[in-house]
Amino acid sequence: MSLTNATPLEVAQSARVGSRKLAVLSTEERNAALTAIHKALAEGKDEVLAANKSDLEAADKAAAGGHLSQSLVKRLDLGKKGKYEDMLQGILDVRDLEDPINKITSRTLLDDNLILSRKTCPIGVLLIIFEARPEVIANISALALKSGNAAILKGGKESSHSFAAIASIISHALSTTAVPSDCLQLVQTHDVIADLLKLDTLIDLCIPRGGNKLVRMVKDSTAIPVLGHADGICCTYLCADYPAEKAIKIIVDAKVSYPAGCNALEQLLIESSGLTTVLPAVAQALLESGVSLRCDAASLSALQKTLDPHSAALLQPSSPSDYDFEFLDLVLAIKTVESVDEAISHINTHSSHHTDAILTLDPEHANRFLAAVDSSSVYWNTSTRMADGQRYGFGTEVGISTNKIHSRGPVGLEGLTIYKWILEGDAQVSAEYGAGGKSWKHEKLAVEGEEWVARSEEEKDVLRRFRTGRGAGLTDV
Amino acid sequence: MSLTNATPLEVAQSARVGSRKLAVLSTEERNAALTAIHKALAEGKDEVLAANKSDLEAADKAAAGGHLSQSLVKRLDLGKKGKYEDMLQGILDVRDLEDPINKITSRTLLDDNLILSRKTCPIGVLLIIFEARPEVIANISALALKSGNAAILKGGKESSHSFAAIASIISHALSTTAVPSDCLQLVQTHDVIADLLKLDTLIDLCIPRGGNKLVRMVKDSTAIPVLGHADGICCTYLCADYPAEKAIKIIVDAKVSYPAGCNALEQLLIESSGLTTVLPAVAQALLESGVSLRCDAASLSALQKTLDPHSAALLQPSSPSDYDFEFLDLVLAIKTVESVDEAISHINTHSSHHTDAILTLDPEHANRFLAAVDSSSVYWNTSTRMADGQRYGFGTEVGISTNKIHSRGPVGLEGLTIYKWILEGDAQVSAEYGAGGKSWKHEKLAVEGEEWVARSEEEKDVLRRFRTGRGAGLTDV
Repeated sequence: MSLTNATPLEVAQSARVGSRKLAVLSTEERNAALTAIHKALAEGKDEVLAANKSDLEAADKAAAGGHLSQSLVKRLDLGKKGKYEDMLQGILDVRDLEDPINKITSRTLLDDNLILSRKTCPIGVLLIIFEARPEVIANISALALKSGNAAILKGGKESSHSFAAIASIISHALSTTAVPSDCLQLVQTHDVIADLLKLDTLIDLCIPRGGNKLVRMVKDSTAIPVLGHADGICCTYLCADYPAEKAIKIIVDAKVSYPAGCNALEQLLIESSGLTTVLPAVAQALLESGVSLRCDAASLSALQKTLDPHSAALLQPSSPSDYDFEFLDLVLAIKTVESVDEAISHINTHSSHHTDAILTLDPEHANRFLAAVDSSSVYWNTSTRMADGQRYGFGTEVGISTNKIHSRGPVGLEGLTIYKWILEGDAQVSAEYGAGGKSWKHEKLAVEGEEWVARSEEEKDVLRRFRTGRGAGLTDV
Repeated sequence: MSLTNATPLEVAQSARVGSRKLAVLSTEERNAALTAIHKALAEGKDEVLAANKSDLEAADKAAAGGHLSQSLVKRLDLGKKGKYEDMLQGILDVRDLEDPINKITSRTLLDDNLILSRKTCPIGVLLIIFEARPEVIANISALALKSGNAAILKGGKESSHSFAAIASIISHALSTTAVPSDCLQLVQTHDVIADLLKLDTLIDLCIPRGGNKLVRMVKDSTAIPVLGHADGICCTYLCADYPAEKAIKIIVDAKVSYPAGCNALEQLLIESSGLTTVLPAVAQALLESGVSLRCDAASLSALQKTLDPHSAALLQPSSPSDYDFEFLDLVLAIKTVESVDEAISHINTHSSHHTDAILTLDPEHANRFLAAVDSSSVYWNTSTRMADGQRYGFGTEVGISTNKIHSRGPVGLEGLTIYKWILEGDAQVSAEYGAGGKSWKHEKLAVEGEEWVARSEEEKDVLRRFRTGRGAGLTDV
């Protein structure tokens, strides 16, 4: 990693050259680089924490002057209980994931001795813009190297000392490995971003990790593809038939377990026939968890009649803008709808297409909802907070995408790869095929290392019986 | 399909609403719409050809005045031998492809009764900008409907009468089907494009089908993701060890069979040790096919010494800009390189990352080339003209992408789809898992309709013996 003051063009060009070399390194060479980074950061802990202390002192001053929130100051602190060790472990976790590149994902015999393969490969050069949290730099570096991508990193200024210390250690560690150090570059000045965003022939993908404003700014000022989400306005539609106890468990988790998360619940839609049956218990539980409820007229009226006077006094009327807003706080907007179709229509119009849920015992309503809601993740009877790469089993995540192309929902290592088509032949040419000429075979071939597949009902039966033990004797045939 | 003069915002909003309805139609309903369009266009042939005649007359006038090329006039002509019938057949071909949406592509047991599925779905609303060829409108409409996407279409002005006639027929046909007519809208005025390109919250993907200038203009003026290729600068590296006869066959096909194609060869790199062995025969064959050769100093000198005087007189010296140019004509730039590494480096710098080939008998050189060349398609011993969706076995293609995300190389129906994550549970919530709580199972499940896979060496052995007959008795176990 180089900590660079080079021009944006030099940064991008050297990252591009580095990316070509990185792309052809073996799994072992890329993993060895991650091992080296882990070791160096473990040994350099004191150095990084000292730098982090400088950032914290500056942040404390800024916070005292009202220029920075206390929650942001907390997020800067790398010295907190186990945070540094988690960062180190994260590097090894990424190292130990399956290599996402050089996997053959399809193979077709186009004609005799003419074989088309699709092979996964790195995207190339990533531009990753992130906000204050200093541990992100280690996480992103690990993900980029594991997937064979070069990365240009730009972090928030509040963490600049921590970033510089981590970058210097990573840079030194990489110099002992096969990975060119230009593959990871930390740019230090903010004013380079606008110029980097113009370099769409050198940078292949931009991942802004931060708030709505950052993502919008990036999208509006670049021809580089952008992966990310601007908002997390998640909705849950509670049907009248759903048991109150389960509804409380799910909705309280979705709203309260981490209100600042992009997968936190922001809007509760309630079926009108449930206004006085299931809603009051849910509202009571939310109020007891400290959640402010902003209710539409129908739900406000129903809750005022059913809740005790103390709770009812806490209710607030909603305004129309509450249904297009990401609170990121203990605030929930409630809206009454007549049907699953009205819920679907509201969500498709007002949610941010991140994660939306239905709570119902009726499979027909659930299936209609799951099919028609146009969001990255759609849930039946569970909490929107489940939307997370680690929970989905990806091992880690780059972020959550509300894009409609490439990668949608939690993005794991696979989202940092693309593929190339490889065609191997023996002097076949295009003009030989088609009208009056040779025919294409287009026969699907097994991919290397692919599992043996049972191709007929009979073969499936053989496997089934073998697994259930009734075919155990087969090994003696 | 509506032939619309509505405002860009109205067009995009109604396409968005239409796309929601289209996305939940069954395979049969979408296929029935394609059948209806096919039938209507077959019956309306005279009407379309009459409109096409108006376009042709205007084009002939423009060509006579020097404002339009004769090759463009030819491409406008829908009445030419079998062209209309090919267009009609294309609709049925697309209809009969496998449905690309609603396919479960992965399924994971996160915990008991908590199942995560990844299901393919349409992208949403496509904006497709294409140049003159009138039959493209039928092709694109078929691809969009088959994949469940709404499409806003803008064609070149030279085909406006043909487009209007086809759009009116498709519109009438759709009104008898389950597909909302707003799902296909042909916009007629050119000045709406700039406004449409601003609507990135309503339009999900833009596909410009046309020249470099169009693609560049689109990329530079929108936050909508763009799928396509700006240039087709394809290179072939000819090694000294490759037999001249096969080299001639491949290189003549790549250059001559369709010089205006984006997959046509534009640059031949020759290994220096082959300058006087394999190159002269290849150059002679190209000259005999009418190709102008623009040679670097080394190849010019070698060919001047080895070719007969008449042929040698046809050779031209190249200029540096010839190695960054798409000729789209019977012109080929030749460059001498010392090694496979120099060829790789030249191609990664000067090709348009579309399709590049190596011709060699040496597997080590070939593999190095295939791994290191960063192009959508990389070939060993075959013609760059093979880069085509039909040839790759996709049935059809939307176009060829040199993007580094989503879809690369020839784009089939799969490139018009994305996926959503569906999580079905029974009131599990995020706070139950993790430190001190429940553990994730993250167990891969078979996807519906997926083949049974032999998971262990033992199971593979069982299948193997069953197939070779030695386990045939197993059915009686």
